[in-house]
Amino acid sequence: MNNVCNLFGARYPVVQGGMVWCSGWRLAAAVSNAGGLGLLGAGSMTPELLREHVRRCRVATDRPFGVNLPLAGRDASSLVEVIVDEGVKIVFTSAGSPRPWTRYLKDKGVIVAHVVSSSRFAAKCEDAGVDAIVAEGFEAGGHNGREETTTLCLIPAVRRATSLPLIAAGGIGTGRAMLAARALGADAVQIGTRFALARESAAHDNFKRLCLSLEEGDTRLLLKKLAPTRLVKSDFMTAVEEAESRGASSEELKALLGKGRARLGIFEGNLTEGELEIGQVASLFREEQSAAEIMRDIIDEYENALTTTREWSTRADF
Amino acid sequence: MNNVCNLFGARYPVVQGGMVWCSGWRLAAAVSNAGGLGLLGAGSMTPELLREHVRRCRVATDRPFGVNLPLAGRDASSLVEVIVDEGVKIVFTSAGSPRPWTRYLKDKGVIVAHVVSSSRFAAKCEDAGVDAIVAEGFEAGGHNGREETTTLCLIPAVRRATSLPLIAAGGIGTGRAMLAARALGADAVQIGTRFALARESAAHDNFKRLCLSLEEGDTRLLLKKLAPTRLVKSDFMTAVEEAESRGASSEELKALLGKGRARLGIFEGNLTEGELEIGQVASLFREEQSAAEIMRDIIDEYENALTTTREWSTRADF
Repeated sequence: MNNVCNLFGARYPVVQGGMVWCSGWRLAAAVSNAGGLGLLGAGSMTPELLREHVRRCRVATDRPFGVNLPLAGRDASSLVEVIVDEGVKIVFTSAGSPRPWTRYLKDKGVIVAHVVSSSRFAAKCEDAGVDAIVAEGFEAGGHNGREETTTLCLIPAVRRATSLPLIAAGGIGTGRAMLAARALGADAVQIGTRFALARESAAHDNFKRLCLSLEEGDTRLLLKKLAPTRLVKSDFMTAVEEAESRGASSEELKALLGKGRARLGIFEGNLTEGELEIGQVASLFREEQSAAEIMRDIIDEYENALTTTREWSTRADF
Repeated sequence: MNNVCNLFGARYPVVQGGMVWCSGWRLAAAVSNAGGLGLLGAGSMTPELLREHVRRCRVATDRPFGVNLPLAGRDASSLVEVIVDEGVKIVFTSAGSPRPWTRYLKDKGVIVAHVVSSSRFAAKCEDAGVDAIVAEGFEAGGHNGREETTTLCLIPAVRRATSLPLIAAGGIGTGRAMLAARALGADAVQIGTRFALARESAAHDNFKRLCLSLEEGDTRLLLKKLAPTRLVKSDFMTAVEEAESRGASSEELKALLGKGRARLGIFEGNLTEGELEIGQVASLFREEQSAAEIMRDIIDEYENALTTTREWSTRADF
């Protein structure tokens, strides 16, 4: 059996990214019910709201699900308490060092995966005792690594650096990309963008519709003087690009960014002033689907592609 | 038989990128002799020098080889004349529109592939009558697309846009990455970085040694106000980064770049003042190998990975 499926008790080696303003109980439960591993995105939740989502998710599915927890957030320790208190058994930590929390969570019986963007950090995670690694490349939406390593280059590097179960993320939204990730050495995939645009995602319809009409090149990694973030083309993004082009300082960018823009854009659907975060792979998708339809598409395409590999030997003709 | 092998008469679906200051007759002939398709990099050659390399290459191999020709260069038309005059049968054009030259070259019996970084441009190439497409992602070394689409996102998009034989490039240096590229819909791969660091590459030993010691994150896509170029960390790159961080204009950057820096860095081995161009994937490699060793490594790893796919069905356990 696949080691990631085994670790989390999922049918398929597909994790749904725990994305801010998208990944509530509806999405996580739908993905888990469809055989993947659904994650709640605690990064945009208060501890009270997370508690509510955990409880609702448990009602909506009897399959395993988890919580994505950005460790750099102010509420991290209160969110951890909710997770433990509610008996959540799977946590994906990100945005920060796993060291302070991994031991604590594992002592409470929680399985811990951590999201990295470099092999150096993957090795540190293994030392910290995490159970699995998510390695996420440059093409991913939202917050991103400083080294700009793409998934194609990152996965083989992380595969060399650790023997832990490895989940590839960034640029993966199809069964063929899932097969590619496995060819590179990953055991499973984490899919954000395509599930962010699913029917069950909490994102605003305006945001989903815009993202389902994007062309290649319509997202850009910006805000590198603060925290590199992949943004969708919009008035706000143009303002950021212009400021950066004339050498704006990090203070200036911080003021331009202000507060609450991701909520405004993704959750409230303000496409001009909001911060819109999605991955490059969005340009491959044109219609809103349910999480179950997405999962079926991905697995069917994966299995079909797997069948075609039988004809790919370079030795066949000689 | 693989359609790219068929088109070019190569044993393996592996093209060696025609890179400035690296891809002379020694490298191209060694790759073609090892069953790939070797390319001469005309971008750093005068017409007279290209003629010499074509002739020497023909002495050194009886297998097919080709020429990479950047169409935006000043010497493009003289280089085309040498290609036709010397009876070269394969040309990979890049950096410019294929429209002015494709018909002319095809009328002379030349097979034409064109390098693109977007599906929109791939469709234009098909209209222009090219025989094959090379789609190159953000992780590639040297000159690069403006849209920053990574190979993982680019290949499926180009695969949808054209039914021409498709060669994936950018971030590919191993057999596993070759399998990943095929999973994404490519028929073959073009490998630059790993061959740029091969024994037969014309690059300076200083350059090769430096590139064989790089870590992830040691290259960066810069000079976006001129032509986006992936550079290796060095004093020159730091100067570019600092200038861009304070908002330097394209004129200022042009003055900073000056002339002849790629030759100075890659061919003459000046690691502080030279422009050093290599792909992200360099960080996976640590030793100089011959082109034949590289080809054997790639094909062996590809075939081994292909064998393991038999165990990857999600249906196996259920």
